[in-house]
Amino acid sequence: MRIKVINPNTSTSMTALIDRAATSRASPDCLVETVNPAMGPESIESHYDEALSVPGVLAEIAAEQFDGYVIACFGDPGLDAARELADGPVVGIAEAAMRTAAYLGRGFSVVTTLERTCGRAWDLAERYGVSRFCLGVSACDIPVLEVEAALDEVAFACQKAVATDRSDVVVLGCAGMTAHCAQISARVGVPVIDGVQAAVLQVESLVRMGLRTGSMREYAPPPPKLYTGVLAQFGT
Amino acid sequence: MRIKVINPNTSTSMTALIDRAATSRASPDCLVETVNPAMGPESIESHYDEALSVPGVLAEIAAEQFDGYVIACFGDPGLDAARELADGPVVGIAEAAMRTAAYLGRGFSVVTTLERTCGRAWDLAERYGVSRFCLGVSACDIPVLEVEAALDEVAFACQKAVATDRSDVVVLGCAGMTAHCAQISARVGVPVIDGVQAAVLQVESLVRMGLRTGSMREYAPPPPKLYTGVLAQFGT
Amino acid sequence: MRIKVINPNTSTSMTALIDRAATSRASPDCLVETVNPAMGPESIESHYDEALSVPGVLAEIAAEQFDGYVIACFGDPGLDAARELADGPVVGIAEAAMRTAAYLGRGFSVVTTLERTCGRAWDLAERYGVSRFCLGVSACDIPVLEVEAALDEVAFACQKAVATDRSDVVVLGCAGMTAHCAQISARVGVPVIDGVQAAVLQVESLVRMGLRTGSMREYAPPPPKLYTGVLAQFGT
Amino acid sequence: MRIKVINPNTSTSMTALIDRAATSRASPDCLVETVNPAMGPESIESHYDEALSVPGVLAEIAAEQFDGYVIACFGDPGLDAARELADGPVVGIAEAAMRTAAYLGRGFSVVTTLERTCGRAWDLAERYGVSRFCLGVSACDIPVLEVEAALDEVAFACQKAVATDRSDVVVLGCAGMTAHCAQISARVGVPVIDGVQAAVLQVESLVRMGLRTGSMREYAPPPPKLYTGVLAQFGT
Amino acid sequence: MRIKVINPNTSTSMTALIDRAATSRASPDCLVETVNPAMGPESIESHYDEALSVPGVLAEIAAEQFDGYVIACFGDPGLDAARELADGPVVGIAEAAMRTAAYLGRGFSVVTTLERTCGRAWDLAERYGVSRFCLGVSACDIPVLEVEAALDEVAFACQKAVATDRSDVVVLGCAGMTAHCAQISARVGVPVIDGVQAAVLQVESLVRMGLRTGSMREYAPPPPKLYTGVLAQFGT
Amino acid sequence: MRIKVINPNTSTSMTALIDRAATSRASPDCLVETVNPAMGPESIESHYDEALSVPGVLAEIAAEQFDGYVIACFGDPGLDAARELADGPVVGIAEAAMRTAAYLGRGFSVVTTLERTCGRAWDLAERYGVSRFCLGVSACDIPVLEVEAALDEVAFACQKAVATDRSDVVVLGCAGMTAHCAQISARVGVPVIDGVQAAVLQVESLVRMGLRTGSMREYAPPPPKLYTGVLAQFGT
Repeated sequence: MRIKVINPNTSTSMTALIDRAATSRASPDCLVETVNPAMGPESIESHYDEALSVPGVLAEIAAEQFDGYVIACFGDPGLDAARELADGPVVGIAEAAMRTAAYLGRGFSVVTTLERTCGRAWDLAERYGVSRFCLGVSACDIPVLEVEAALDEVAFACQKAVATDRSDVVVLGCAGMTAHCAQISARVGVPVIDGVQAAVLQVESLVRMGLRTGSMREYAPPPPKLYTGVLAQFGT
Repeated sequence: MRIKVINPNTSTSMTALIDRAATSRASPDCLVETVNPAMGPESIESHYDEALSVPGVLAEIAAEQFDGYVIACFGDPGLDAARELADGPVVGIAEAAMRTAAYLGRGFSVVTTLERTCGRAWDLAERYGVSRFCLGVSACDIPVLEVEAALDEVAFACQKAVATDRSDVVVLGCAGMTAHCAQISARVGVPVIDGVQAAVLQVESLVRMGLRTGSMREYAPPPPKLYTGVLAQFGT
Repeated sequence: MRIKVINPNTSTSMTALIDRAATSRASPDCLVETVNPAMGPESIESHYDEALSVPGVLAEIAAEQFDGYVIACFGDPGLDAARELADGPVVGIAEAAMRTAAYLGRGFSVVTTLERTCGRAWDLAERYGVSRFCLGVSACDIPVLEVEAALDEVAFACQKAVATDRSDVVVLGCAGMTAHCAQISARVGVPVIDGVQAAVLQVESLVRMGLRTGSMREYAPPPPKLYTGVLAQFGT
Repeated sequence: MRIKVINPNTSTSMTALIDRAATSRASPDCLVETVNPAMGPESIESHYDEALSVPGVLAEIAAEQFDGYVIACFGDPGLDAARELADGPVVGIAEAAMRTAAYLGRGFSVVTTLERTCGRAWDLAERYGVSRFCLGVSACDIPVLEVEAALDEVAFACQKAVATDRSDVVVLGCAGMTAHCAQISARVGVPVIDGVQAAVLQVESLVRMGLRTGSMREYAPPPPKLYTGVLAQFGT
Repeated sequence: MRIKVINPNTSTSMTALIDRAATSRASPDCLVETVNPAMGPESIESHYDEALSVPGVLAEIAAEQFDGYVIACFGDPGLDAARELADGPVVGIAEAAMRTAAYLGRGFSVVTTLERTCGRAWDLAERYGVSRFCLGVSACDIPVLEVEAALDEVAFACQKAVATDRSDVVVLGCAGMTAHCAQISARVGVPVIDGVQAAVLQVESLVRMGLRTGSMREYAPPPPKLYTGVLAQFGT
Repeated sequence: MRIKVINPNTSTSMTALIDRAATSRASPDCLVETVNPAMGPESIESHYDEALSVPGVLAEIAAEQFDGYVIACFGDPGLDAARELADGPVVGIAEAAMRTAAYLGRGFSVVTTLERTCGRAWDLAERYGVSRFCLGVSACDIPVLEVEAALDEVAFACQKAVATDRSDVVVLGCAGMTAHCAQISARVGVPVIDGVQAAVLQVESLVRMGLRTGSMREYAPPPPKLYTGVLAQFGT
């Protein structure tokens, strides 16, 4: 089984970080390849960045056929489009993290990077049907590319969130936090979920069961279309 | 007052059609400029097309400062990102059409082009808070670029929707239907709303009141960022 | 185009205040007439007052045909009944203010007069489908007829609401606050919406598009009926 | 214990009908007085009628102190205002019928008179928190004042509703249907609820427990106010 | 009329307490019998206890035919199963208390025993359709069997809840608090609802109207079935 | 890794069937043990059966420590209590099936056994936050113990559900259907999900990530308690 993990941020150091988490968690018979696109924002910290990361994500989906795909940014950019395009299942890390958290208690707290990204987390919670489990979204106010080096600040924000939200579980709201998972759980005393690991295992499970996106209706392959300008490569 | 109407589809004939509706409806002191991006899909008929229309929309927002902006595709692609980027207010035609319909009765029917786009209309209805007014979304099964020439089929789909959904109002679910508005209303006997006109007037109203997107938090301008590859132009 | 703005409070000084906001905002080709009923409460500060303001509102709707109508009290009294009765579109100021705010960010705060009116604002937010955008309703604790002279208190309540609710926009929760709009926006740093202006422009837009309440079903004209007692005039 | 049942329709024959249901169901120690207002519509079949029935309802509440009150029209006109005004608890028949039905199964069907009143029933279901139990609202298309004589048509509409909605219970959607309750239940084979009886017993229960509307906040007595014109009597 | 009140806790002193509340509130022609099962937990303070109280509750329902039944624990254990099994109506005290509170204002606070039971109260509020009325659930942190002797602590928690939640009404979240109802209401100044009394009167009302659970579909009697082990007695 | 799969039905042939699905799907390093309780109903076809299956499920959880647990009946009986009791994660098959389906499209259809169980499936969809994905619940009207031998009837019900609900995915609504998964998918043309397989893989994933139910609050171990009668074994 081959799973492609796509980091929508074009930062290669972040890609390496995500790769360590993804490969360490995957099963022995599951080969993980972690990449970032050749186009788009170095890091995603706004709706603007997120929207503009999508072409790169889709180019990576289209590049070569894998058994399944993970979109490794907590905004799950391009998920619907990726599901139309891909032959195998596609899972976003926000989606996987939040749904996984829902198995572990009445409610979870999301701790994200910059405060301006909290709104997107709430949107996703609603879209994925977990808003009743999502007791709070808060920010540690560390930029995406600095969060890997900010264990203490992230852990403190998690502790505060658990106390304020009275939650059972913490969801890490950025792929850049993936290495902090175990340490924060030890400090805070509740389960802490990293979406990269949750998504890799979720895609593995879907592939094992032979499941992929239903393609009879909305998620059928996109109709062929003329594309122009710098995006001409996306046409067919 | 200058308003820019952006057709996210790169089809110039569709842009001309939208321009006629937009300029005919705008107030005398409001100058409308209708454009389509230089990059992206000729028409938008999937999540894939919609996602890939966004860079072009954002390039048009960034190109030159207007008092307000309309995104003239019923999926409202790139709306959040556009609001971060633009100095003036930004309104999508699905947003304007559905909110306008909510002033006119208990519920409306959306009639869209291909069935695969119905899901997106439901997503937007929920996002905009009008799902309680949205009594049904159905498709006339005509592709986007053929819908201008398909008055009878669209009108028939509207009649059927009103009877099935027991709705008070029809919302046209594609900018390409903009010219059919009055004729369908005459045939079906209920108000029929074209999002292009509704959005132009909504932006006009916002500009008259001196209102634009609140920019203290989530919708502050995007932080400067390195962009790579064919999207390098979007970085700062 | 002629629009009638009805102040459901019978206070004539409040009517004059509303008239100034409404006429200053309307387009040159739009004639606004602002009135208050000849029957009912001097000001509306309870469910009781609001219910008893409705006959006066409906009498004003029935009095003479206009192209459109605004109900200029933040409880939107009699809106459903007015829509059955009127030939043209009818818009309430709470409805227009809250829906307008939804174009400008993730969420808004409503600041109203007496705390006892907060519940009604929540009810309307739910009815209009904007409860997901309504992040808080709070009161400045100034009676309706004193609010015009209480800029500082209202502005302070708005500042507090924006900080507490973490909102992008403020909605003024009483027609009597209409003159404070620009000054409060300057002080608080976020867009501030006055429903009188928003509703006048909304009705204008509906009239320009030739739209009125759908009247095939629930909002058909009321069936003729014998009325008795002091309300006999309302029968037909 | 004295309970006042107010028929918001000014039809005296309908009042007599309601009185029979109310008095037959009340406990021996509970004195029921059924009245209709001296002002307002003969029957309520529109939002317009309903709004204009409210002054009469409130005049009856204010007239003399009872231990509790029932508002006996399925639109529950004036309920919030009545709760501010009354010393004892106030219950609407739609409220009591729908909440009572929720004790008896997964879901109920409402069968009302004219189709144009269905929207109001849905509004109330949502307001009372029973929309998840309300599986359908349908009309028998008989005017309010003819429904007493139309047992067969009402029963047929109930049978159809139960089959279509797959419901466990029927709620009669008009006080004028009160006499049909037992017969329809026998024909349809499911529990059938008449709001008049349900509301009288609910008020009785509240009075026995010494409970009335909480009056510390929103439902405090209305502030004294000047009222003008034909409604001057409502001022204080 | 004979009503059986079942205390799902096997504590006989608590049963005696519940019996006093139930019998004092029932009508003269209504004979109340209060029991506790012969199997199960002495008190219910976890999902585990609650689940294991259900067989005892069902054994009591099956033991002898009454006109109606009350399940007198605030988690309403076994309610759906009891409705399938019983010939007469079955009402839970959480259900009755929360629905009764909804007649008395915009919102109520629930005050329960241990904090770990708050989640269950929220679940029930949602299930019964009263989550919009439920403004807060908080705990006094007194175990179930000590709550009878802890008037001051419970009253203090109620006062705090009303101030924090800005609620109109208090719902007592444990049958063991039944004796405190009047005293707390006097101290806090808002209506206070004891579910035992509310449920007894609700069942009485249902029986008087000849209503029981609809049994045509989901709540038909359970199909006969082989049961094994210590639960063999429950088979047929 | 050792996972215990508990069939809440005491039918041993059904347990064998579930065991085949569970063991065939588990990873090589994951030892699955499938059991059914020594007490309770042979099959679960009512709220009554489901409630009475819970003691047996809990006895199996308490019997011996495993790394994780699956509750293999589509009503997920005893899930909250099991989470308090177990050291490792606990997943229900309805929960796993419905959440898994949400990764694969806009919406799914549930096909269950007897019509009377549809209500429970809706309850769970709401509880798990997937009601927006659940487009329909329908029954094939085959009893639980006969469903294994009724491939054609189940497949036909699935085809009908997909056409009626316009869904992307089918969820099999009974553990007894576990063997039909691949064949029905081939016939219907959409992904078909068996909750037994989905739950086993979900528990595996949770265990691999070191995650279990958060136990700081609501899901802490149940407080020790005296239990009486035939349930005395459950006390501590």
